[in-house]
Amino acid sequence: MAIQEWLREDLERVEARMRAIPLTVEPLKVAVHHLLNAGGKRIRPMLVLLTGRLYGQADERMVSLAAAVEMLHTATLVHDDLIDGALLRRGIPTLNAIWTPAATVLTGDYLFAYAAALAARTDHVRVMAIFARTLMTICEGELRQQFSDPEAMWQREDYRQRIYAKTAAMFELATEAAAVLAGAPEPQVEALRRYGVELGMAFQIMDDVLDFAGDEQVLGKPVGSDLRQGLVTLPVLLYLEEHPGDPVIRQVLSGRSGDEALIREAVRRIRSSQAIPRAVAEAEAFVRRGQALLEALPDGPARGALWALAEHVLRRDR
Amino acid sequence: MAIQEWLREDLERVEARMRAIPLTVEPLKVAVHHLLNAGGKRIRPMLVLLTGRLYGQADERMVSLAAAVEMLHTATLVHDDLIDGALLRRGIPTLNAIWTPAATVLTGDYLFAYAAALAARTDHVRVMAIFARTLMTICEGELRQQFSDPEAMWQREDYRQRIYAKTAAMFELATEAAAVLAGAPEPQVEALRRYGVELGMAFQIMDDVLDFAGDEQVLGKPVGSDLRQGLVTLPVLLYLEEHPGDPVIRQVLSGRSGDEALIREAVRRIRSSQAIPRAVAEAEAFVRRGQALLEALPDGPARGALWALAEHVLRRDR
Repeated sequence: MAIQEWLREDLERVEARMRAIPLTVEPLKVAVHHLLNAGGKRIRPMLVLLTGRLYGQADERMVSLAAAVEMLHTATLVHDDLIDGALLRRGIPTLNAIWTPAATVLTGDYLFAYAAALAARTDHVRVMAIFARTLMTICEGELRQQFSDPEAMWQREDYRQRIYAKTAAMFELATEAAAVLAGAPEPQVEALRRYGVELGMAFQIMDDVLDFAGDEQVLGKPVGSDLRQGLVTLPVLLYLEEHPGDPVIRQVLSGRSGDEALIREAVRRIRSSQAIPRAVAEAEAFVRRGQALLEALPDGPARGALWALAEHVLRRDR
Repeated sequence: MAIQEWLREDLERVEARMRAIPLTVEPLKVAVHHLLNAGGKRIRPMLVLLTGRLYGQADERMVSLAAAVEMLHTATLVHDDLIDGALLRRGIPTLNAIWTPAATVLTGDYLFAYAAALAARTDHVRVMAIFARTLMTICEGELRQQFSDPEAMWQREDYRQRIYAKTAAMFELATEAAAVLAGAPEPQVEALRRYGVELGMAFQIMDDVLDFAGDEQVLGKPVGSDLRQGLVTLPVLLYLEEHPGDPVIRQVLSGRSGDEALIREAVRRIRSSQAIPRAVAEAEAFVRRGQALLEALPDGPARGALWALAEHVLRRDR
């Protein structure tokens, strides 16, 4: 993407700041660097940096904020992988795949602390309060899932809450905190906060779509992984609206079936149904709402890039 | 203690602030309140409040700081109990005893986030940076233990580092952050920070002494629990200096022996040895160094209370 090129120098500073993690326990240092090297799309730091540039802000504090957001995201992934028992992430073994649960819990805690330390470098209390609030939202969302009636998963409203806590809250953090740090006027802070939410919702829906409709080679993982975990996402909900009694889907989700042929058949049915274009249309509606919110912001290349980034979320293939 | 009476109103505000935790997931809310009701000595909030009173500060921000420190402490206990597989804490079942590891990890994370949110209410960036640094120190100390050569545990220096990260770092946080928030002059911030470290070291040594020499009825747990976990503490190190080849102690520690009679015999030997008074003498040395540091601070009842609190650490029976 051209946006990445435009932000390249700042993104390199973000990477350097994350790698400056002062861990002295050697095996851990190696593993954490490995984790950071495996990369990711760095969309959250890009949101911070673009929001900063809207207001001509590209200083060290904005770089610290971008690193803090990505570090918080990384910390939540470490604990998520432990909770889900995931063995691979971005094609490399997860920490819990190679270490004890104890070491994995503590590493996640350390990364949370480092994220907070990076956030403190913004020298801005409100930014830090937004960080704390976001982490509470994310944890509470996951906890609600752990304790909720399994039937709740079949509700659209439950799905909406889940993807908000899982993904959109962190996007919201990125744009809101960056706007606050850049000293944006309050109505623009609010517009950017809401833009972050809309973009995050679209991003997660597209993630859930790709888990059915994506190319396994490009994704780097088999399709249908949510189904394998018994997770009901938007494509499934939309498919079942059209085919309420479909026995294959129900069977896969009722027993967390390990029957690979059955899972493949479920993926094939959903993938070739209207559920996929309908889910994409829902993601697009979030993107359009997000783009419309940008109109209240200062015109220029940064605003254009935020617009294009939202567009890209709909077009991505991994 | 008279100090508790003097601080009573503020301590009640601290409790109320901790209980105002905005958890909406019902079973979790019940469990967290249960955890908070089980109490604890609240020595960390007392350190914050007394430091504040040295400078005539007893406002809402100091109460928030005291609640934040105790909440951070509580969060680390939740993850520690999970890591150690502990089933009881302060006589009530731990979260991991009644729930899945997933729910326990997430609850700890949520409490970290709430601690950060409480710390943000101090409206003071440096205070928040101290919080982040402390959590990094604590996690790194535990991680070093997880990855270290088991032989390292027999070194006095290793023990010193362990109890610093495990206990003294949090006491240091309490006094340093409170001094910063109260606007103390830098040399006094430094004196209070060091006082916190000395007191924390003494506190942990006395904890380790009580694990051998305490009264099981008063402690609410069996003596020798560190030995059962294979943990080498100061009384053991001092005992082995006098009895280098003692076969009972070595046998208990080599195999994490479940042999109750053997553990009782090991406890009996250490309990009746010179290791106990020698360990207490080491704790007393820390206390005296801490008390000496108080001389640089404003005279008055708060300083007297900090002096007495240090004295109490040596005399406590649980």
